Amino acid sequence: MKFALAQTNPTIGAFSENIQKICNFSEQAKKNGADVVIFPELSICGYPPKDLLERQEFIEDSIKALWELIDKIKGITVICGGISKNNSDVGRPIFNSIFVFKDGKILQRGDKRLLPTYDVFDEARYFAPGQRSSWVKIGEKKIGLSVCEDIWNDKDLFPRHLYPVDPVEELFKEKVDLFINISASPFNLGKPKFRKHLLTHLAQKYRRPFFYINQVGGQDSLIFDGNSMAVDHKGELIAHARDFKEDIIFVDIEKLKGETHPTSSCDEEALLKALSIGLFDYMRRTGFKKIVLGLSGGIDSSVTAVIAVKTLGAENVLGVLMPSPFTSKESIEDAMGLAKNLGIKTIKIPITNIFNAYLKELAPVFKGYPTDTTEENIQARIRGNILMAISNKFGHLVISTGNKSELAVGYCTLYGDLSGGFALICDVPKTMVYKLAYFLNREREIIPHRVLIKPPSAELRPNQKDQDELPPYEIVDTVIHMYLELGASPDEIIAKGLDPDLVKRVIRMIDKSEYKRQQAPFGPRVTSRAFGCGRRYPVAHGYKL
Amino acid sequence: MKFALAQTNPTIGAFSENIQKICNFSEQAKKNGADVVIFPELSICGYPPKDLLERQEFIEDSIKALWELIDKIKGITVICGGISKNNSDVGRPIFNSIFVFKDGKILQRGDKRLLPTYDVFDEARYFAPGQRSSWVKIGEKKIGLSVCEDIWNDKDLFPRHLYPVDPVEELFKEKVDLFINISASPFNLGKPKFRKHLLTHLAQKYRRPFFYINQVGGQDSLIFDGNSMAVDHKGELIAHARDFKEDIIFVDIEKLKGETHPTSSCDEEALLKALSIGLFDYMRRTGFKKIVLGLSGGIDSSVTAVIAVKTLGAENVLGVLMPSPFTSKESIEDAMGLAKNLGIKTIKIPITNIFNAYLKELAPVFKGYPTDTTEENIQARIRGNILMAISNKFGHLVISTGNKSELAVGYCTLYGDLSGGFALICDVPKTMVYKLAYFLNREREIIPHRVLIKPPSAELRPNQKDQDELPPYEIVDTVIHMYLELGASPDEIIAKGLDPDLVKRVIRMIDKSEYKRQQAPFGPRVTSRAFGCGRRYPVAHGYKL
Repeated sequence: MKFALAQTNPTIGAFSENIQKICNFSEQAKKNGADVVIFPELSICGYPPKDLLERQEFIEDSIKALWELIDKIKGITVICGGISKNNSDVGRPIFNSIFVFKDGKILQRGDKRLLPTYDVFDEARYFAPGQRSSWVKIGEKKIGLSVCEDIWNDKDLFPRHLYPVDPVEELFKEKVDLFINISASPFNLGKPKFRKHLLTHLAQKYRRPFFYINQVGGQDSLIFDGNSMAVDHKGELIAHARDFKEDIIFVDIEKLKGETHPTSSCDEEALLKALSIGLFDYMRRTGFKKIVLGLSGGIDSSVTAVIAVKTLGAENVLGVLMPSPFTSKESIEDAMGLAKNLGIKTIKIPITNIFNAYLKELAPVFKGYPTDTTEENIQARIRGNILMAISNKFGHLVISTGNKSELAVGYCTLYGDLSGGFALICDVPKTMVYKLAYFLNREREIIPHRVLIKPPSAELRPNQKDQDELPPYEIVDTVIHMYLELGASPDEIIAKGLDPDLVKRVIRMIDKSEYKRQQAPFGPRVTSRAFGCGRRYPVAHGYKL
Repeated sequence: MKFALAQTNPTIGAFSENIQKICNFSEQAKKNGADVVIFPELSICGYPPKDLLERQEFIEDSIKALWELIDKIKGITVICGGISKNNSDVGRPIFNSIFVFKDGKILQRGDKRLLPTYDVFDEARYFAPGQRSSWVKIGEKKIGLSVCEDIWNDKDLFPRHLYPVDPVEELFKEKVDLFINISASPFNLGKPKFRKHLLTHLAQKYRRPFFYINQVGGQDSLIFDGNSMAVDHKGELIAHARDFKEDIIFVDIEKLKGETHPTSSCDEEALLKALSIGLFDYMRRTGFKKIVLGLSGGIDSSVTAVIAVKTLGAENVLGVLMPSPFTSKESIEDAMGLAKNLGIKTIKIPITNIFNAYLKELAPVFKGYPTDTTEENIQARIRGNILMAISNKFGHLVISTGNKSELAVGYCTLYGDLSGGFALICDVPKTMVYKLAYFLNREREIIPHRVLIKPPSAELRPNQKDQDELPPYEIVDTVIHMYLELGASPDEIIAKGLDPDLVKRVIRMIDKSEYKRQQAPFGPRVTSRAFGCGRRYPVAHGYKL
């Protein structure tokens, strides 16, 4: 028997489009002689639908789409994810289900048992947990069915298991021959590797092959990387789909042989693909064709511009230079050099006259007060206003260019550089932005070399340098990683040999900047803990570490 | 025996302050001869701590604070809410617990069994559910203990019960003499009345008295109204605490008699108190002393200014007039009239020169394109920049003045009128803003009468009127109520006799404006479904109703 693993990129709630995609891949699977084709979790409605799941119409439309699909596809067994109703009058009204159907008939249904409710996940908000694990017999094979989180509760791999049951273990006790897991598992750096480790472990532990099918695409801040795969009963990889791209791979389940498509070979490559699909999918799903961004001649806007051009083409990217009296000649040269290398159109709108107009009107009010960050923020906000005006006039999406380190410590201006519809590198720490820049420049110099070596500066007053105002970015990024991603305490971070005062200062800066982040635009989540929907902090609180 | 019900206003994570508060109220209870004093849910750490609950240090500090409290208070039985550890290695690591202690010893602990995970609540994200209901014997009385949601699963009152168990029913079967519920139940219009209905129903059903103690105060967007109360075994109200204010009331549990303090007599009064405590608590918890807001001479900024003055005093409110060429003489008169009535300081910063400076710099880029909303947004964003500059220079908090109707249909400018740290009336629909205005003017004219009767206008171009661009606010607000709060479908709304095209248009506008709301400042939640953390919608999706 031949199984096809089809990783699709559905649009949330675009039912016709999503089921057409499933039909097309099923057709392709049939043409290639597959007996079974498998699609990701909730592939009919797309993941995550969030509070659309609270709308009765959405549930009805989703179930209608499932039945359309069942009517349409003939001659192949389909396994896919969708919503089903909970007929009990206790608990949430719906399940996150896996359906097996063929020739107009549902052969089996399973309901997701473990509902992730942490980080970016809110599944207990919407779904009732399935009460038992399901399997289906196809040919001679008894196939164990599971949905995403169902396989993430293994006693050996997770020191604290969040759930009292382990559906994989239960399926093993039911003597299944093969495990299938359909997922919508979001990307972060390191996640694809860990998933492979998990599958290998489970296959070896239970001595059964494991097939894993994951969603692809960008859904607001979440990026799904695909990376669907199959391992045999010894945990050896026998098939692997592309990353960050729709794909289909075939596996012979008797011979346990399949095909392996190319995937990213390093973090930088994976990260660039993640940011790119995040931007591309956000644009097409919100109807934008072109983007506009400010070019400062710095590293952040340079990297952002390169990714935008690689994603959308030079003709769809507009760079705006907005020099002030504090903008250096070098910055303008670097911004123009980058634009030339990329072949994008630029416009220059000096902010000096506008800035002076503000200062003049504010002079009577500010009389007697010294110049401070106020005047810096005014400049940043003038630039925000100009970019938004261009967006409003021409319909371009404003891409903001701030990185995660700035956002963490609050080194950014609300309604200024934080303006925009999509914050492309908001989850990329500054040290990683540099790595991306070197990676982008590896074949030829796209970003002028000087941008990579000059000290970063906001250029909002004379001789300003980031590193005069902030702890070194290496320290900031280490604290971000340990405090935010790993949940380490200040003492644990200091124990790594970092300066205690600097560590505490960075943590204080992170805690104090929460109000800014709550109004910041979102962007692709690429680390295991991003700001945004996965980190829910009070703004006004009295907790001091 | 005399029981004291003490409704406190804790600050999240301010452990010393919070336990001092509990000590003070316990002292007062003792002085008044009480045998038992009862405090709200999580009164040691404050509710909701959100992701602070994921920090090990926070858990440890909270438990340390509990033991300090236990050591400190002598001679009275205390019942209060706090965190306890889950000693099992399965499930979430903590419980949301109710403690009963006296003279250095814990007499009983109960763990919240029903964990709300909907709307603004995320408790399944943090807590393990309690496995059984607890009671404690005090004197001759067997007292059933419960925490907030534990009493919200009654079969008679809730057509769909979210949870398979009903802790109140279980406690009744354990033959308790009295029910106690400690809560942190957020306010919305109508909620206090429903809570009373719920308690009366439960008391009558089980023929037992019911004591209910609720948190007070503003925690970011959530407002807790107190309204603690006691009903006897016939469901008659025997004691009632104030609303929106810390308070203590005493109940004799043999005679079933207690005291009743004054509460709001109408929606407008409750709403004003809710907004006021929301603002006041946000300010003191973030360290702000003064606020600044734009005064347009319209109804929204007028109502906002009056509430700010009532909350903070005239000396702490600064009004800024920012006239443009499109600002009418009447608007300036009305803004100045309001300021005079309130006795607040105003400054006037005309935006015309700044606006012209933008237009001049943008002219080469915009050449050949007609004037449109771009130019309107530029003005709104200039005002945002000016208010933020004043905030930065003087340390005042910017209060934004948009209402819920505008936010719903997107009739507002990102980084313009949506700028601010706190959006005081962002959950108040326009029709309710008018009701508030009339209520505020009931004794004397504070808001100039013309503001209440002139047609609302953004004054961003000549002769602009809201009602030329939007459906009537009565329609908008009805759709907001039915679609957002009640979750009604478009058909159900149309069935109420509303124009189908208008209904669909408003819903489309709501759906299309999600991106703006995700970057908007928060403000007090006063309806049963506010924008913000209680409504989690995808921005980029393909669902069409």
